Amino acid sequence: MRVNGQAYRSIWLAADGVEVEIIDQTQLPFRFQVARLKRLEDAMEAISRMLVRGAPLIGATAAYGICLGLRRAAGSQALEEMARQLIGCRPTAVNLRWAVERMVRCLLPLPEEQRLAAAYREAGLICEEDVAANEAIGRHGLALVQKLWHTKQLGEPVHILTHCNAGWLATVDWGTALAPVYAAVAAGIPVHVWVDETRPRNQGASLTAWELAAAGISHHLLVDNAGGHLMQHGLVDLCIVGSDRTTAGGDVCNKIGTYLKALAARDNGVPFYVALPGSTVDWTMDDGVAEIPIEERDMDEVLRVRGEDEHGAVRTVAIAPAGTPAVNPAFDVTPARLVTGLITERGICPASRDGLAGLYPEQGQ
Amino acid sequence: MRVNGQAYRSIWLAADGVEVEIIDQTQLPFRFQVARLKRLEDAMEAISRMLVRGAPLIGATAAYGICLGLRRAAGSQALEEMARQLIGCRPTAVNLRWAVERMVRCLLPLPEEQRLAAAYREAGLICEEDVAANEAIGRHGLALVQKLWHTKQLGEPVHILTHCNAGWLATVDWGTALAPVYAAVAAGIPVHVWVDETRPRNQGASLTAWELAAAGISHHLLVDNAGGHLMQHGLVDLCIVGSDRTTAGGDVCNKIGTYLKALAARDNGVPFYVALPGSTVDWTMDDGVAEIPIEERDMDEVLRVRGEDEHGAVRTVAIAPAGTPAVNPAFDVTPARLVTGLITERGICPASRDGLAGLYPEQGQ
Repeated sequence: MRVNGQAYRSIWLAADGVEVEIIDQTQLPFRFQVARLKRLEDAMEAISRMLVRGAPLIGATAAYGICLGLRRAAGSQALEEMARQLIGCRPTAVNLRWAVERMVRCLLPLPEEQRLAAAYREAGLICEEDVAANEAIGRHGLALVQKLWHTKQLGEPVHILTHCNAGWLATVDWGTALAPVYAAVAAGIPVHVWVDETRPRNQGASLTAWELAAAGISHHLLVDNAGGHLMQHGLVDLCIVGSDRTTAGGDVCNKIGTYLKALAARDNGVPFYVALPGSTVDWTMDDGVAEIPIEERDMDEVLRVRGEDEHGAVRTVAIAPAGTPAVNPAFDVTPARLVTGLITERGICPASRDGLAGLYPEQGQ
Repeated sequence: MRVNGQAYRSIWLAADGVEVEIIDQTQLPFRFQVARLKRLEDAMEAISRMLVRGAPLIGATAAYGICLGLRRAAGSQALEEMARQLIGCRPTAVNLRWAVERMVRCLLPLPEEQRLAAAYREAGLICEEDVAANEAIGRHGLALVQKLWHTKQLGEPVHILTHCNAGWLATVDWGTALAPVYAAVAAGIPVHVWVDETRPRNQGASLTAWELAAAGISHHLLVDNAGGHLMQHGLVDLCIVGSDRTTAGGDVCNKIGTYLKALAARDNGVPFYVALPGSTVDWTMDDGVAEIPIEERDMDEVLRVRGEDEHGAVRTVAIAPAGTPAVNPAFDVTPARLVTGLITERGICPASRDGLAGLYPEQGQ
């Protein structure tokens, strides 16, 4: 996507063809700043401290993390150790494990001296496949938006509510939940996006609002509390969110608060779709609420808010009395029964074991 | 309630017996600051700028606003004009209208020279009745908490989730939703409170957390997104919230986001109660979603967050890109079907026309 007229992805090889560059997303929307990953540890820190976030982008960054690690040591034990460390950086998103295991599976059978070059090839492939998958998600989602548009009065936009950021910044390019929005706008369909601010880290306010503004797409920011009220009053035509892990049964783990929006959508007859690449499906799990480990992050994310002061300085302010204890689960699980459909790179399917197996027959048994 | 060992209400007559003092709640939790209301305009500003908030306290402040206004002019036209101005300060909470209309009904028949003294008597009465009502709400709610406690393992606290602030700061004293909490703790029942931060104004983080800490009651702060996840995992025994307006049919208008918590409570079999004095019931309305006017507040409340920086200075930071448009509905309506029961000063009843009419037969016909 374009930033100030220049085309960007969220991760790319540096000019030296060896080091890796990313957009430091902790600095957005106030600073557009590129960070350079030189070592495995840089990639791990970028994932843990959320300079990169979003399941697909975490996977891509981990893949390049393996490349950076192999520059120092290419032995099998070293490879398995770096894989273990990378997977431990964030517990919930399944793409991280998926990408790392794919790298290991590809590299382990090779002689040591061939591993580094093969790693860069495979990481590049993971990125290209992600871009292609998201383009396809956009195409399939576009058909959905188009159908809704035909039911609207002439000139009325399609109102889409989204939670957190599942735009191009969460992937290598295009995004998952926002891919249909970008595709619809490109096809000339008027779209207006309701952007949940998405506490505690405010990725809606800082990333989704920034992305949409950069693309010139009409949107309004709202607090996470407000979506139900909008749906009660007929102001939302469609919800689309991303997913950090989807079970084989169709349960969707996504940013904390997604479940509440799905409940409101169901209560008001608003279609609730989840956009995800197949790499986000965890075929080993069925019951998301019982089985998916939910990351508990630092309570400071709840107790403090980061923003820009009146002098343009980025600073953090405390919003609660000193000493207040807080809990901070980063994700929740939306049961499949609340999901209207899954938008994947292979098409749209019901959120169910049969639905997913129909699109990914190679995974079923 | 006690602050630093001294007993306070949220509003009281100043030492001169004429002017009125309040706690400036926009300064909490960082500064405990008393503000003085000398004129009608001060009372109106305190309500509009939310130095006072919470339906019962808004009503009490408006009643004293009439007293302050009558000091300047006690004619019938003046009285009706100040009533009109006060009611216009906030559109959603019905206690404001209720208190002002009660003052006018009491004062209008009197000769002009008797109005001022009668106004102070009536405003004082409104305050005393509010305190008594909240104590009674606490008593009735206590029975509910007690029953839940008896189903728990020995030593396990009752986990109560609340949204926004419906504590003593929202009323003259005791609170509505928190009155049962205070009563239960006084009765020796271990209670732990989940405090929704309640964006955009963060009254949970700044007021409820502050109240509970001052009273030494165990609590954790969480983002508004997290309550559904806690309920899915059996960590919430009971929800209690307040109400800014309750229809005769039992629909509950309360701080934005309440509806989402009620949906999650229903989906997980968690009892969802609303605590309110009878003055909060709007007997002229039935369908809350269709009929209650929802205040739309300044979008700056969404775009900016107020807190204390690392040097102890209270400042406001922007969380979204400059120029981002936002919407800011301040309340939503929870349909009666999602409410387990209403805790009133006269007892607990179903959220329905029959339920309310049973407790308030003088309002039925």
